[in-house]
Parts: sequence; C-alpha cells; structure tokens
Amino acid sequence: MDTTPALLSKTSGLAAELVHHKDLLPHVKEARLDDDGGVAGVGLCARHKVHSLTHRLARALQVPQRRLAGGTVGLLIPKAAHLHVDVFLAQLGACVHGICQEVGLDLLIETTDDLGAEPVACLDRLRSRGIGGLIVVNPRGEDYGLLHRLADAGVALVVFGAGLPGLERFAALGCDSPGAVRLLMRHLQQLGHRRIGHVSYAPAEFVLVDERVRGWTEALLADGVRPEPAWLVHADISAASGYQATRSLLAQQRPLPAARRITALFAGNDTIAFGALRAVREAGLQVPSDIAVVGFDDIPLAAYADPPLTTVRTDPIGHGREAMALLLAQLRGLRAPPTHWLERPELVVRASCGAVRG
Amino acid sequence: MDTTPALLSKTSGLAAELVHHKDLLPHVKEARLDDDGGVAGVGLCARHKVHSLTHRLARALQVPQRRLAGGTVGLLIPKAAHLHVDVFLAQLGACVHGICQEVGLDLLIETTDDLGAEPVACLDRLRSRGIGGLIVVNPRGEDYGLLHRLADAGVALVVFGAGLPGLERFAALGCDSPGAVRLLMRHLQQLGHRRIGHVSYAPAEFVLVDERVRGWTEALLADGVRPEPAWLVHADISAASGYQATRSLLAQQRPLPAARRITALFAGNDTIAFGALRAVREAGLQVPSDIAVVGFDDIPLAAYADPPLTTVRTDPIGHGREAMALLLAQLRGLRAPPTHWLERPELVVRASCGAVRG
Repeated sequence: MDTTPALLSKTSGLAAELVHHKDLLPHVKEARLDDDGGVAGVGLCARHKVHSLTHRLARALQVPQRRLAGGTVGLLIPKAAHLHVDVFLAQLGACVHGICQEVGLDLLIETTDDLGAEPVACLDRLRSRGIGGLIVVNPRGEDYGLLHRLADAGVALVVFGAGLPGLERFAALGCDSPGAVRLLMRHLQQLGHRRIGHVSYAPAEFVLVDERVRGWTEALLADGVRPEPAWLVHADISAASGYQATRSLLAQQRPLPAARRITALFAGNDTIAFGALRAVREAGLQVPSDIAVVGFDDIPLAAYADPPLTTVRTDPIGHGREAMALLLAQLRGLRAPPTHWLERPELVVRASCGAVRG
Repeated sequence: MDTTPALLSKTSGLAAELVHHKDLLPHVKEARLDDDGGVAGVGLCARHKVHSLTHRLARALQVPQRRLAGGTVGLLIPKAAHLHVDVFLAQLGACVHGICQEVGLDLLIETTDDLGAEPVACLDRLRSRGIGGLIVVNPRGEDYGLLHRLADAGVALVVFGAGLPGLERFAALGCDSPGAVRLLMRHLQQLGHRRIGHVSYAPAEFVLVDERVRGWTEALLADGVRPEPAWLVHADISAASGYQATRSLLAQQRPLPAARRITALFAGNDTIAFGALRAVREAGLQVPSDIAVVGFDDIPLAAYADPPLTTVRTDPIGHGREAMALLLAQLRGLRAPPTHWLERPELVVRASCGAVRG
C-alpha cells in the first residue's frame, strides 16, 4: 500500500502536510505494516506511536486538526453506573472524551437499557441527539440485534468484541481475552495449582464473561482437570459482589477434604478480586499460601491490594485511542473492510499468586 | 411559605397535578421546612425523599416529566482524568448523567484546563455547544474569577464549595468538610493519638484540600499539639501519589525517637489511603498497632482495604441529585436567593483505626 500517508491523514484527522512532516514520516512508513485493513497483531505499538506522535506534533506545530462540524458520538454501555464501578470502563471513557475534545466532537454516554430493543424509537433517539457514531462496550448477547439494526441504518459503529462470532461485519477491537486467560492459568498451573476456581466479574449474559469462562474451562481440561460446577461463581461488577460470590464458593469448599479443595482463584477482574481477597481472609485462609488469587486488568489500585495483585495488564487508554481512530475513519467516510484489532495483554506478577514476595 | 407545591413543581420539573397527588402531598408539606432559601441543615433527608418520591411516582403514574427543549448542561472539573481516578467524582458524574437523561438534558464533561482563563473564548465555547448551565466540582482558587465571569454572563451555575468565602453569590453545596475532619480527628484523639500526620489528596491549590488541612491543624492545636511541617504531605489524586507522599512522610519520621513519631495518619481521601497503607506496610509497620490510618469518602473499595478502612461517608449520589435540583431551578427561571447546602458526613469505624477488630 502506497497510500499510507493519505490514509493516516484521513484516520487521524491531520492535514496532509503534517503527515509528510520530516519528523513524522519515518514513523508513518513504519506504520504501513499495520494499515492493511485485516486482523492486526504485530506492530500495533507502532500504530499507537504514530497516533500519539501526530497529535503531539499537531500541538507543537500549532497545526489545527480537521474538525467534524457539530458532530456528536456516543459511548454505549449497559448501565451508566458501570462507569464508576468498572475502572477499565472509566479509564476508557476518559480517554475517548479527551480525543473527542481534541477533534471537536461532543461525547454523550448512552446506555442500552435506555435505548431498549425497539429499533425505530432507538434510531429516533440517536437522530434527535445528532449522534452519528457509537463506541459499544461490554455488549450482552441480546444487544447484538440492536447493533445490526443500527449498522443497517448507517450509524457508524465500533464494537468491543474483536474476533467474536456475530460481530464480523463491524469494526471491532478488544484485548485478546482467551490469550490473557491462558497466560494467567498457565502461570498458576506452573506454580503447581491444578484445582483453580473462577469468580467471573459479571453475569453470564455478557459476551466477554462467557469468553473468559470458556478460557478458564479449556485451561483446566488441557491440564487433565475436570472443572466442578461449584468452582464457578458469578459476581456483578462491584467489589461487594465479588466478596459475596467468593464467600459462597468458599462455603461449598469447606466440607471437602483438603485434597479436593481449590488452591487458587482466578477473579474475572481486579475490582471483584478486592472482594475475593477479603472473603478469603475472613474464611481464615492466607493469600497466597492457602489460596493464590489473580485478577484481570491491572487497575490503578491493583498494586495496592494486600497482597499486591497478580493480574494481566490491559490498556484502556490504548483501547480508547484505537476505538476513536476506527470511528473517525468511518465518520470521515473512509471505506475499508471491517478491522478487528486485538491487544495482547501482559502478565504482571505480584505477591498474590505466591511467585514473588511482598 | 405557602408556595411549596408550586416551587417543588418548578424545581423537580413535575406537573403541578403530580405534586398535589395524595400520596405525595404529605411529603411535600414536610419538605416546606427546607425550602426557605437559606443555609440548610436539618431536614434535608425529607427534601431528598420528596425528590426521589416525585421521580418514582412520575414513573409509576407514567406522567411525563417536563422537558427542557434541547438543553445541554456541563459538568466542569479540573481534568477529565480525575473522573476515573477520583471515585467520588465518578459516582457524582454517573448520578448527574442519570438525572439528565430522566429530564431530557444532554450532559457534557468540560474541564477548566480546556476552558482556560480567557473569558470571551470560554463563553463562546460554552455558547457554541449550547450549554446553559454548569455544575462545578473541585474548583481551584484560581478558577474563582472564571466562575464570576460565567455568572455575570448569565450562565446558570452550581458550585461545590458550600460556605466558602468568595462563593456567596452562587448556589453551592458540599459536604461539611471541616465537620468531617473534626469527626475523624476527634475519633483518633479519643483513641489516644496526639501526633497525627496528614496526607492531603491533592496539591494545596484546590480549595477543598486547603479546607481539610485547616481542619486538621485546628484539631491538633485544640488538643495542645503543634503540628510539625513534616507531618503534612500532598498527594495528587491517585493511589500511587498517596504511596509516594506517605513514603516521604515516613522517611522523615524514621530518624526520630519513638516518642516524637506520629502514631496516626489522616489520608485526605480513600484512594490515596490505599497507597498510604502500602507505604506503611513496606516500612515494616503494622496498621493500626504502629500507625492508625483513616480515609475520607467511604468509596466502594474502602471496606475491602486490608485492614478495612475507617473513614467518613459522603454521599456523591445525594450530592449529584441536589446539584441537579439547584441547577434545574435556575434553568427553569426560578428566582431565589443563593442556596448553600451542606451534607453532614457520618463516621464509619472499621479496623484501620484500631477501634474495632478485623
């Protein structure tokens, strides 16, 4: 592809002169690898670098960014309350908001509960607010129909759920959730754990929850362990729900002989892991010597849990940036095949799994 | 005042028939106590009850709420990133967003850093976005000039900072911060602590930070203790900054004889208290036996700290509701003297102060 600078100009909203600027061009060339419109994996760091560099350069050179006249985009989530309970979502939202301000768009938070399932009412509502595009986070299986109707009506969409069946037609992104679960499970298994419980971060209706449960099951089976139904409990976003769910899991374990009890717990995200840690302590057990605990996301407080939480680091800021780039490309009329972008999460080992001290 | 039902109808945006509904009228009458336009204290629970009841009733009776045609309001904060780092703010924002949706307003997040100090540019920007009213949270002293210019230009304003000098002309609200600090300090002092350090949650330029530092100083002096400069450090919103600030405070303590070291720490909010707890642990000290730690706000994770955190409970959802009621009254043209609303926070005793176990 020879058109990378032009493409970058379109997707980043920067003047073409800027994209050809001598300080930027080497990176633009490096980025060509990624702009092939297919499922990307390698080299995404470079794409992020270009994105951030172009914006920094635009500021430094005081080149005005191209603005979308009077545009409004929506961040579509299941419930507004998730914004402050789910720390990943809050960081993503802040990043998306910042980019909207940079490029002159207004951002509205929309919830699927408000939009409902009625397609005409839903479209009327979006039109009356002048919303031309939506970033859709944490969709439930039942929301898929709505997403297809929105796309049919010409609403620009970016969906969190890269690689999931049923989302092929959309620009989609997400972290490599099965890969991240494999990382965590392999780490625990290498530390000698075989019976590993799972506290999911939300009810099973969320597609991502289902995906993580599948990853957990497959990792156990690959190790020759058949997961017992009592090893899986569902929390509901908050630390309090993680505490309650873990309590009920531990209560099921108590009557069993030691050789049949779980020795480790995979918490579906870091917020509920805080609740899990307290439930384990209250049961008179030590983390990690009696039960190792791992989380998911590496939220800012994860390093301040006691013991500090082993987790996988996802990048909500990077996700927000990438989601906006995909959405802006559509809003600016760039025709390209649907892009699915997958982030490779990184294992962060701290004391809660027992591999390191303190 | 005989006009309470009419006033309530205006401020809540409900049809007059609804306000006179037999299920609601007793509460409306009860609420008359509060609508005197002065600094309110007693009886605010009743006001909240009416507010929530009217909304619940409106839904139950399917009476449409009066809508403000095409209105947009802004939530004005110093930096967008604070929305996900400061949990109080995130909860407040979610509540304000929910009420905006109920009454048909759009909500935009605005930051003072973006608005800048230039009054004309700032007003142009608000007008171009159709923003008629702003809820201003965590203002810095340097933002006061901007607030006065906005008010002069007819922008409806509600400011967090009830009772503070320089904010008399505004509708203002907030928790009784000096009172809350007194509660925390008296509790520590009754447990026998005299030398108490303070890790503020942000730099001193924030008015609220300054107010809490003053409360801490006065409580020590009232106990006959002269606070040493090294007992006060400033964090910057995040847990990581609370960790760093507490480390530097503890490093100053280490060379001192035991009789001169602090025995307790007041963290300016719960998020930075998580960082403080880790710094104390890393210094080889136990909470609460070597150093008692208390926080501020009772965020959802406070009960899941180790040890669980003693704190004062503030009510961001109640604050959001009250802020919107004050803003809607102005947007609907209700002329009333500026109202200052103060919430009385409640002490929540958990294990981190040493008064209770586990």
